Amino acid sequence: MILSALLTSVGINLGLCFLFFTLYSVLRKQPWNVAVYAPRLLAQGQSLREGEFNLERLLPTAGWVRRAWQPSDEQLISTLGLDAVVFTRIFVFSLKVFAFAGVVGIFILLPVNFLGNQLDYDFSDLSNKSLDSFSISNVNNGSNWLWVHFCAAYIFTGVVCYFLYYEHCYISSKRIAYFYSSEPKPHQFSVLVRGIPVSSGSSCSETVERFFTEYHPTTYLSHAVVCRTSKLQGLITDAEKMYRKLAHLKLAQSGQRFRRDGFLGIFGRKVNILDKYEKKLEDLEDNMRMEQSSFTGKEVPAAFVSFKSRLGAAIALHIPQGVNPTEWVTERAPEPQDVYWPFFSASFLKRWIFKLVVVVACAALTILFLIPVVIVQGLTHLDQLEIWFPFLKGILELAVVSQVITGYLPSLILQLFLSLVPPIMIIFSSIQGYISLSQIESSACNKVLWFTIWNIFFANVLSGSALYQVNVFLEPKNIPRVLAEAVPAQAAFFIAYVVTSGWTSLSSELFRLTPLLCSFIKRLFAGKDDDEFEVPSIPYYSEIPTLLFFGLLGVTYFFLAPLILPFLLVYYCLGYIIYRNQLLNVYSPKYETGGKFWPIVHYSIIFSLVLMHVIAIGLFGLKKLPLAASLTVPLPVLTLLFNEYCQKRFLSIFKSYPVECLAKKDREDQNNTAMAAFYDKLVAAYRDPALLSTRYPRSSDGRSSPLLPPSEV
Amino acid sequence: MILSALLTSVGINLGLCFLFFTLYSVLRKQPWNVAVYAPRLLAQGQSLREGEFNLERLLPTAGWVRRAWQPSDEQLISTLGLDAVVFTRIFVFSLKVFAFAGVVGIFILLPVNFLGNQLDYDFSDLSNKSLDSFSISNVNNGSNWLWVHFCAAYIFTGVVCYFLYYEHCYISSKRIAYFYSSEPKPHQFSVLVRGIPVSSGSSCSETVERFFTEYHPTTYLSHAVVCRTSKLQGLITDAEKMYRKLAHLKLAQSGQRFRRDGFLGIFGRKVNILDKYEKKLEDLEDNMRMEQSSFTGKEVPAAFVSFKSRLGAAIALHIPQGVNPTEWVTERAPEPQDVYWPFFSASFLKRWIFKLVVVVACAALTILFLIPVVIVQGLTHLDQLEIWFPFLKGILELAVVSQVITGYLPSLILQLFLSLVPPIMIIFSSIQGYISLSQIESSACNKVLWFTIWNIFFANVLSGSALYQVNVFLEPKNIPRVLAEAVPAQAAFFIAYVVTSGWTSLSSELFRLTPLLCSFIKRLFAGKDDDEFEVPSIPYYSEIPTLLFFGLLGVTYFFLAPLILPFLLVYYCLGYIIYRNQLLNVYSPKYETGGKFWPIVHYSIIFSLVLMHVIAIGLFGLKKLPLAASLTVPLPVLTLLFNEYCQKRFLSIFKSYPVECLAKKDREDQNNTAMAAFYDKLVAAYRDPALLSTRYPRSSDGRSSPLLPPSEV
Repeated sequence: MILSALLTSVGINLGLCFLFFTLYSVLRKQPWNVAVYAPRLLAQGQSLREGEFNLERLLPTAGWVRRAWQPSDEQLISTLGLDAVVFTRIFVFSLKVFAFAGVVGIFILLPVNFLGNQLDYDFSDLSNKSLDSFSISNVNNGSNWLWVHFCAAYIFTGVVCYFLYYEHCYISSKRIAYFYSSEPKPHQFSVLVRGIPVSSGSSCSETVERFFTEYHPTTYLSHAVVCRTSKLQGLITDAEKMYRKLAHLKLAQSGQRFRRDGFLGIFGRKVNILDKYEKKLEDLEDNMRMEQSSFTGKEVPAAFVSFKSRLGAAIALHIPQGVNPTEWVTERAPEPQDVYWPFFSASFLKRWIFKLVVVVACAALTILFLIPVVIVQGLTHLDQLEIWFPFLKGILELAVVSQVITGYLPSLILQLFLSLVPPIMIIFSSIQGYISLSQIESSACNKVLWFTIWNIFFANVLSGSALYQVNVFLEPKNIPRVLAEAVPAQAAFFIAYVVTSGWTSLSSELFRLTPLLCSFIKRLFAGKDDDEFEVPSIPYYSEIPTLLFFGLLGVTYFFLAPLILPFLLVYYCLGYIIYRNQLLNVYSPKYETGGKFWPIVHYSIIFSLVLMHVIAIGLFGLKKLPLAASLTVPLPVLTLLFNEYCQKRFLSIFKSYPVECLAKKDREDQNNTAMAAFYDKLVAAYRDPALLSTRYPRSSDGRSSPLLPPSEV
Repeated sequence: MILSALLTSVGINLGLCFLFFTLYSVLRKQPWNVAVYAPRLLAQGQSLREGEFNLERLLPTAGWVRRAWQPSDEQLISTLGLDAVVFTRIFVFSLKVFAFAGVVGIFILLPVNFLGNQLDYDFSDLSNKSLDSFSISNVNNGSNWLWVHFCAAYIFTGVVCYFLYYEHCYISSKRIAYFYSSEPKPHQFSVLVRGIPVSSGSSCSETVERFFTEYHPTTYLSHAVVCRTSKLQGLITDAEKMYRKLAHLKLAQSGQRFRRDGFLGIFGRKVNILDKYEKKLEDLEDNMRMEQSSFTGKEVPAAFVSFKSRLGAAIALHIPQGVNPTEWVTERAPEPQDVYWPFFSASFLKRWIFKLVVVVACAALTILFLIPVVIVQGLTHLDQLEIWFPFLKGILELAVVSQVITGYLPSLILQLFLSLVPPIMIIFSSIQGYISLSQIESSACNKVLWFTIWNIFFANVLSGSALYQVNVFLEPKNIPRVLAEAVPAQAAFFIAYVVTSGWTSLSSELFRLTPLLCSFIKRLFAGKDDDEFEVPSIPYYSEIPTLLFFGLLGVTYFFLAPLILPFLLVYYCLGYIIYRNQLLNVYSPKYETGGKFWPIVHYSIIFSLVLMHVIAIGLFGLKKLPLAASLTVPLPVLTLLFNEYCQKRFLSIFKSYPVECLAKKDREDQNNTAMAAFYDKLVAAYRDPALLSTRYPRSSDGRSSPLLPPSEV
């Protein structure tokens, strides 16, 4: 790719970003868009749908930037929870790292690269210059200037490790502080027990009761056996849907209450569908009651067990319970609202098999995904495309077409395919048998990350069949050489990728095009504001891998093609503001893990560093500077040692809270008069909501009922 | 190697074995050898040094075989502990596996191999036949007979896994039963805490006291801070030596009490050395007392903390204690008599660095060790030796010389060098910072095992420079092919290795040549029985790796060269009897780990199986049967899954006892009246023995004093 193509792409994207930002700053002030741009505030009652009209509403302003910038981390923690703050810390960390890298890269490495003449291009026209002349490929073989790159690699690694260490200190201290400041919560006092060995004579509930009163006599409080409620839950979902429909109909004009009962509501005789729906709802409720009353034999040998203290739960969690380690297997209980297990299984063997199935499925997905990647890869090599499709020759020779195709199209197509991956990974993770949404998302986050690294980075870099790629990794000796040959060659593609995919994803995140269109269409057809709206939760499992992948690109290309760094810096700056804005206005957390996503960030950064070192070793070898290559070898070793140290020093905090914290919190609670009420709540916290009898109020005035939850009896 | 050379070797070794056995059965009945052949019984008072002379004492009998055979596992556990029984179970397991393998190998595989004619040897003379014609190399390429080997590999793997599973069940149930039947022991109630964050204002002891009374108020009992007593311990050792010398001198004739004080005791004037020694001992005792009284400032930030219940200790052990995971690091406390830490360090970073140093040292040892191995390897290829040293040609062409050299010498030299490895590994493991002899030996056991596998198996098989070997493993694709070419070629060497090294090591184990000679020389020069004798402990760290290495040979050569199996069976049969005999008569356990050596056995067997599968895949490929090669691929996968299952199902039992056991035992103790006395003992159990004041009695009648321990005041 030549410089002008890159500039075209940057121009298009900058223009798009400004357009989106301007539109956003206007649209967000319109009262009818509050449900799109500030659902979180609306749900909390901090924002109103109605507002007086004034001229200012039509002018683009930047006040939202200031408001997103202002709140401190402490304020964010108290309003949004720790997860959101950890998410913004990824931006802070990246900004620090790439600000340093940018200064070194642009002012030191870039001139060195540019002054080399290995690639021997024409110097006359800067805009027609290949981007490669800004990369390390342009430095002459055996040149002593490469020692500058060598030093840069060492210093950069040191700086990244220092910032990482600092961030670890910061986040782990925040995690502990967050725990200290938290109210007693059911999941802190509970564990999930699987593999309960139910003897033929007694029920599961009795077995659990007996075991825990025997072996945890002082701390055991209560338990709730898990049941197979999928059929019942189906009924409840149906009933809820029907209830909402009914409530909606009652609000609507009476003209809509009658419909023909034939095909598509067009033929047949007119019936009052209100009556019909009410009849159906009653049937459903009867069914539910019947199911609930006959619900005794469907117990699963698994139970949520609650304890009187946090330490009691920790004891049940950390120390193996039964003589047979596959029985009485304990696991941290998720928050009650976080429990989600479409594929829950109490059997040890079944979960194991499911896990294997998921591994195979992930491998299959990875291989199948290479097909679109290879096609995209072809678009950056126009000459190859011309060979494949000779009839396109005429079109491809037009300057604009060629620039758009090489600069914009590839990453757009990739982006489209990539957007399908996170939902698929969520499905895989839920099949794997995790018991909560947070665990599923965290596991999916990992999967999406490695999928992205493999299928975007390695597939593009090694650009060959899956078999060829696997072959490369089966000969570990050759990895540095192969990577050093291939990675710098793809610098142009990844710079374009940052500009198009990165920047576009940010502005679309801010603009929320899909919800905006949905809301617009709804208003157009329903004729009025729909009271029903859902506050979305931020999809960490797709956002964090994207962020980390750009980090990987920045780290690996830092000394290969420093031209990528300014674009990355812009990405992280915009991202920091935009995501803070969205977290404050749009998203509402569904769960709180206390920053458990951070270790994924840590491992990803360490991997990026080691990858960078491996490429450096290969590159110094290729550039005929073997001494530098061998002197780089200690660098990955030192990085891995640093990783080891961080694991020991910090990462165990993200797994479990120490006795010191647990005992302190437990002692505080002893003097807390609210604990008796909390224990009552705790006993009921993990009861299956499907087993609590529900009643749907039949108010003739349907105005407020759809927002009221069905009351528990 | 040809068949006659093997038979020579077998003949020599069988002869040696019978000679040793006969001599043993006579010598063990001589009263003056009791301290050599039954020190354990002697120490327990079950055997006497004096006995009447009768003719039967001079006749070789086999009564010891019956006596070694008789005791059941339960009897062994009660007299010798679980470790000894687990050790004998390795023999039982190996016997089962190789009895099955032997039947299949000799009656099915061997005829198939022999009837092939790939190697095209002369059929006329059986004794001049190369051993290769009994191996799989002799089967014709592409022959359908290879499917017999294919089936054998599958069935054999199944049988090994079945026996392994059975053995796991047996041993883990024994481990739990052993725990249930055990008396309360200090190490069950204690943990070692390192990284105590001592603030400047308070002492280490106060910090520990405060922390545990605060966070473990109900279970905390007492603690003992670790001290740097190396100087004091040196003084005590010196004083004890001096005391023994003195006591010995007092017993001796008065003529020995005077010695010239010049060079080597030959020149100079005569002095009464008794007086001199007594003076020295007094000085030492003064020094000791001074050291002990000034012993306050040398506390190490580490302590043994004891709890009132086993569950209390487990809680401190399993749940992280402090907010900073590198502080308050807990570790299982070893038995008080098992504590051994020449390189103890309380600092997290220091231990880490030591570990790295040991890794590097192990790598260096492995590379240096290749030198003798390569030389030994040369001896089996006489033709190569003749090229290197042409002047040896005349000697090497003598049949006897060539047979002894190829059949006997190589493994003898190897054995000599190998015997140096276990002590070195013990030193490495102690540098690594383990806190007990049992942990050091277990870690050394692992090190010796992998060292043996690498340096005996791979170094012999791949027979090249270290660099070449490492290269092979850097290209994982080629591993099966390279192994399949090289491993069958070394069958003859390893058969000879089993016969010479294996059988010889067993008979020397039984005969105890070195202690016998020592005792003989002592008696010759001291003129009378020495009352001082030490009951040795069995060196698991060198015995278990040997056993497991022979197991690896058996598993990998089972379908390559089944001729090895009868010799292995003989080895394990003899070993079973001999080691039971030695355990009952000679060795006394220094510590009891409750069978913690078993996981090493498990991993070694799984590794052997997978190695066998990899060789099979390569071999079927070489033999032009690609279908069989690809159908073998699921076998290692299944084996690794079995391993995974066993880890989940059994191996966690070897790490820690579950709550079920701990709570049950704790409850039993509540009704135990002896517990108050036990708690008193527990408080003192982990005090440093160097800090207890000792006094050496000065009896004028020295007869009985050397056996009396110095009394504690």
